Amino acid sequence: MTSSSGHPAHRMLREYVASVLAKDLEAFIALYDRDVFVFDAWDVMWSEGIDAWRSMTNDWFTSLGAERVVVEFEDERSGLSASLAYASAIVRFTAVSSSGEALRSLQNRMTVVLELRGNAWKVVHQHTSSPIDFDTKKAILQAR
Amino acid sequence: MTSSSGHPAHRMLREYVASVLAKDLEAFIALYDRDVFVFDAWDVMWSEGIDAWRSMTNDWFTSLGAERVVVEFEDERSGLSASLAYASAIVRFTAVSSSGEALRSLQNRMTVVLELRGNAWKVVHQHTSSPIDFDTKKAILQAR
Repeated sequence: MTSSSGHPAHRMLREYVASVLAKDLEAFIALYDRDVFVFDAWDVMWSEGIDAWRSMTNDWFTSLGAERVVVEFEDERSGLSASLAYASAIVRFTAVSSSGEALRSLQNRMTVVLELRGNAWKVVHQHTSSPIDFDTKKAILQAR
Repeated sequence: MTSSSGHPAHRMLREYVASVLAKDLEAFIALYDRDVFVFDAWDVMWSEGIDAWRSMTNDWFTSLGAERVVVEFEDERSGLSASLAYASAIVRFTAVSSSGEALRSLQNRMTVVLELRGNAWKVVHQHTSSPIDFDTKKAILQAR
């Protein structure tokens, strides 16, 4: 484990937070490999490739209207080897109004795997989810 | 990417299949690091450490009674560096009766991250989940 500033997975999570807050699609997409394999929290079993991921992310940012999303990671774990890195964390998404008021929030779990591509670390795999209540089959959107 | 036989993440998935089919708790638990950080598909946001994971797995195997579970991985992706490896895949769990009849099945997504501990590769992180239908907040348990 290296310092937070030097660990490519930690850096990726910080840039994820900044690009989501800014709704900066290009900065967000630049974090990912062109062949990224995504297990997203919502609606689809899997998606592959940067075009699909760009489209899903654009839909998300567009759906926010005047709201912004504050992302916070906690309980982070990570690992780093020569050309592979990962991080896993609990992630809280909080929607805030244009005046800065917190409107609603939910928790997910997130895992990212990065590979070194030339000089740049890119996310090749991202897995985001909620656990499921076994009895109701409904998502658990807050820790309990 | 190395051959299937030599890749520690591929080998782990094969041993996962065999130990679940056999309901062999010790063989299953031997795949995991003592500090394993788990995002399971069901009921809890996260768990940490081999004791909690052993308990959860024992509950699963015990709940099966005379049934067994056939595990199949597909759409597998993987990566390997000096001391870190990962695999991600769609996983199908099929419960079969003692006479071999398929009773029910569901799909999940699974990500495993392994680190080299001495001579042995151990799973330090596992993330298993279903996507959530955004409208109903219910788990999607089959690809559609």
